[in-house]
Amino acid sequence: MKIIAIDPGYERLGIAVMEKIDGKEVLLYSSCFITSKDLAHHERLTLVGNEVERIIKEYKPQALAIEKLFFSKNQKTALMVAETRGVILYTASRLGLSVSEYLPVDIKIAVTGYGKSDKNHIIAMVPKLVKITKKIQYDDEYDAIACGITYFAHGLPRGEVTRLSTA
Amino acid sequence: MKIIAIDPGYERLGIAVMEKIDGKEVLLYSSCFITSKDLAHHERLTLVGNEVERIIKEYKPQALAIEKLFFSKNQKTALMVAETRGVILYTASRLGLSVSEYLPVDIKIAVTGYGKSDKNHIIAMVPKLVKITKKIQYDDEYDAIACGITYFAHGLPRGEVTRLSTA
Repeated sequence: MKIIAIDPGYERLGIAVMEKIDGKEVLLYSSCFITSKDLAHHERLTLVGNEVERIIKEYKPQALAIEKLFFSKNQKTALMVAETRGVILYTASRLGLSVSEYLPVDIKIAVTGYGKSDKNHIIAMVPKLVKITKKIQYDDEYDAIACGITYFAHGLPRGEVTRLSTA
Repeated sequence: MKIIAIDPGYERLGIAVMEKIDGKEVLLYSSCFITSKDLAHHERLTLVGNEVERIIKEYKPQALAIEKLFFSKNQKTALMVAETRGVILYTASRLGLSVSEYLPVDIKIAVTGYGKSDKNHIIAMVPKLVKITKKIQYDDEYDAIACGITYFAHGLPRGEVTRLSTA
């Protein structure tokens, strides 16, 4: 099972491609995709969509795991992140991926076992849960990988495992 | 100049295709696209994107005119509409259309000359400003046409007219 996991932001997008190999999550790719403030809003959205499409076509994941927005005090930022999320959900769905969305609290619990853990706790736990052979440069990449860990923790398809073992 | 104008909503999307012919706006197409509550969120977004793509490919407009979101009391609804707007902006931009966004107040002023006009005022004015030869069934279609009227009022490209007249 290969997935693309995304921490959606307007200016910065954390992206990870992960695969479960012999019962262990392995990181195949990660990046922080940044769009310039000098571009028009719809141009930035288009760059995000094109980049997500490019990575999906290269790695061919079967599922998207993405963080869900919750209430935000800054509504303008929240709306722009929501528009970006719309682009990502549409792109993944259009290319045939299944879609799983997780709240920040789901991700914290899956990664650290504690729903109020902070960013440093997440960053400390991620390398213990996933095989990472590259240097992670941005926090956004950790956030994307954490979202992918949540997918495997939640979504490990037991039915499918059973089916495989009896096939 | 042919445009697609959209009143973005989550459940209901007003869509209009309009063209300026001999100095007069003409309605070529309009519809209210509705997605079922029974579908998953990303499936509804995908249907919206596919429908906008279908209409763009059929009518080949050069520009998208779309209503901009402003502050909303219901943040959950606002975020879902924003995700839909993201899908629309991305689809139009990906297919090479220019994008113009208008606030509700811009649309009210362009259509009625008054920034605090109500829905009935808009509906009464639209047929006086646009040649409509079909029966309009939904308010969402009037809202989309009103957005298109705003495009032609604002965006009538004077530079382009000059260029044409001196060509």
